[in-house]
Amino acid sequence: MPTGRFITIEGGEGAGKSTNADLVREVLERHGFDVLATREPGGTPLAEEIRSVLLGPRDEAVEAMAETMLIFAARAQHVAQVIEPALRAGRWVLCERFTDSTFAYQAGGRGVDAEVVAQLAELAHPGLWPDLTLYLDAPPDAAMTRIATRSLDRFERERGDFFERVRKAYAVRAREQPHIVHIDASRDLASVQREIVGAVERFLSTPGNA
Amino acid sequence: MPTGRFITIEGGEGAGKSTNADLVREVLERHGFDVLATREPGGTPLAEEIRSVLLGPRDEAVEAMAETMLIFAARAQHVAQVIEPALRAGRWVLCERFTDSTFAYQAGGRGVDAEVVAQLAELAHPGLWPDLTLYLDAPPDAAMTRIATRSLDRFERERGDFFERVRKAYAVRAREQPHIVHIDASRDLASVQREIVGAVERFLSTPGNA
Repeated sequence: MPTGRFITIEGGEGAGKSTNADLVREVLERHGFDVLATREPGGTPLAEEIRSVLLGPRDEAVEAMAETMLIFAARAQHVAQVIEPALRAGRWVLCERFTDSTFAYQAGGRGVDAEVVAQLAELAHPGLWPDLTLYLDAPPDAAMTRIATRSLDRFERERGDFFERVRKAYAVRAREQPHIVHIDASRDLASVQREIVGAVERFLSTPGNA
Repeated sequence: MPTGRFITIEGGEGAGKSTNADLVREVLERHGFDVLATREPGGTPLAEEIRSVLLGPRDEAVEAMAETMLIFAARAQHVAQVIEPALRAGRWVLCERFTDSTFAYQAGGRGVDAEVVAQLAELAHPGLWPDLTLYLDAPPDAAMTRIATRSLDRFERERGDFFERVRKAYAVRAREQPHIVHIDASRDLASVQREIVGAVERFLSTPGNA
């Protein structure tokens, strides 16, 4: 049986990752693929506990390296227990956030050396990288307006310049990494979704991908 | 002001780390040092939350790399927020368990590459290593009898061969690392404590240490 493909959805707060993950799932299922949809940080009971530790607002200053290692601990568990077994069984895995988020938030946002992020990634998920990443890019201000009605987690409480650094790091990574498709998510939903469907269809029609 | 010294107490389950940490603290305070006593995993509110995640018994198999990264996440936080500020302020830090535990449990016990443990240690606490480590060595069977009345955490529930691997890794590390003093903790408490006091006094009287 051929192994499945690994597709991730990336982007800042309020960029529409969950809504558009549902759309990607529909497209893949229409093509007959068995899709496992998951998200990070999280995806197993242990990894979800780590998610709570990471996202809960707290008075204590959180060291960037502690935060980065927590994220990769959750990811190592998620990959070994959920993502890799599904791919080996021929399922397609669709994941909201993965290591590109860590390059954006912990390297770009917090200032952790990107080489260190790459080194930890290779320890947490040796040899596993997304086959396709849809990066939903929206200006932080517009995005924060969309989530204004939710109660804010520890990341959402950051200041504007943090989100600018995250966005800039995402942009750099999207240029450098051929698996990332940059999507302007600041437009109306219909236009964004047309572009997402187009990107997924192009991926599927590329020889060797599906 | 001179920086303080960093002393750790290592050993398997039930080897007497807490009891003997109290003794070491008394000896240091008798010599006039201001001592901060702490323990791992833990030592800050965030690191204590990670401790709960690590030690709680669970049905889910825990990946060795996830466990190792969780431990170093807690350690990075503990070092930056508590240990290094205390040392810089001239206090002596006495810590139950530190990275030698990770060489013993995650490299020895779980099979994580010791080079990877060393690499993560250098990321979590760059340049910081104990000045003196007291390794309390007791056969696993004798030690497990001592803790039989406690409710067991996820590590204490491991099988006997796990503890044999941990002990063997501690022994190798104690031979290789000059900062580690090997103490036979299987004897009566009075003999063990005489040896501990002797080791601390020798450390204090060595030129340059105190």
